[in-house]
Amino acid sequence: MPDRLILGVDPGVASTGVGVVRERDRRYESVAYDVIRTPAGQAFPDRLAALHRACGALLKRHHPDEMAMERLFFTKNAKTAIAVGQAQGVILLAASEARTPVYDYTPVEVKNAVTGDGRSDKRGVALMVQRLLALAELPRPDDAADALAVAYCHLVSTRRGITAPRRLLGGHP
Amino acid sequence: MPDRLILGVDPGVASTGVGVVRERDRRYESVAYDVIRTPAGQAFPDRLAALHRACGALLKRHHPDEMAMERLFFTKNAKTAIAVGQAQGVILLAASEARTPVYDYTPVEVKNAVTGDGRSDKRGVALMVQRLLALAELPRPDDAADALAVAYCHLVSTRRGITAPRRLLGGHP
Repeated sequence: MPDRLILGVDPGVASTGVGVVRERDRRYESVAYDVIRTPAGQAFPDRLAALHRACGALLKRHHPDEMAMERLFFTKNAKTAIAVGQAQGVILLAASEARTPVYDYTPVEVKNAVTGDGRSDKRGVALMVQRLLALAELPRPDDAADALAVAYCHLVSTRRGITAPRRLLGGHP
Repeated sequence: MPDRLILGVDPGVASTGVGVVRERDRRYESVAYDVIRTPAGQAFPDRLAALHRACGALLKRHHPDEMAMERLFFTKNAKTAIAVGQAQGVILLAASEARTPVYDYTPVEVKNAVTGDGRSDKRGVALMVQRLLALAELPRPDDAADALAVAYCHLVSTRRGITAPRRLLGGHP
């Protein structure tokens, strides 16, 4: 089985978690993880532009085979959902520009894949991500750990066939 | 008072209404209106890319002084809010790239400005838009009429001071 490189993304305007995970000989390793932050003082459209640029640069640097993104399907209010949607919009645009296919997973699917328990808390997810990817330290902050988790989720979902991965309305062939 | 040119936008992934309105000597005229549609069969990230390109081209062609966008602040479900947010994200990115300041208005503010009644239906808004902008025909489809309405709303709000226009978290100075 050839190496696979996945970019996991946990989207948000103020803070977007990103994590690159490689599968090699059925072993998983974290290549890089980080958080893209956009300055709160900036105009909102410019913050989206900064996020778009950072994602484009990341896709160019790592050339992942696929992107895996956390899917939001429930929120307390429309305002939160709109803001997450806006961040997703420019991230998905960057993926389209880099011709990287995108898959998405619900938080429960990600937690099930990582800890076996869809109700795990953030610390539980981070601890399992550390173990599964053989990281020396606990991945921080939470958004970065979540990004590594969704990348791992995509790798094992595709390999083991636990879930039928849902390509985001097609993706690139 | 110098001429002002406003691009109004009613965002959506499948269909985004756009309308360009000019104010000249306290008179308002529709310069252009249209709907940007993205093909349903395409991958979702590519539909966002098509919307982003179309908005960029529109901003380049008309060089509006400002953009006015309908603000969604209530929806029945998070899925709808996410999808509208994704469309808004790539439209706001295009505005940032063109260095066009963005203002947003709630549907009630737009209806109040156009018909004087925040509860008007779509046909009522379209009829008043036709009259206010001296259009020979009723603007169609609804998304395009709504885009003209939000552009008009921004012009009269700024002129008459009916509402304090809210620049989208700053915009460009």
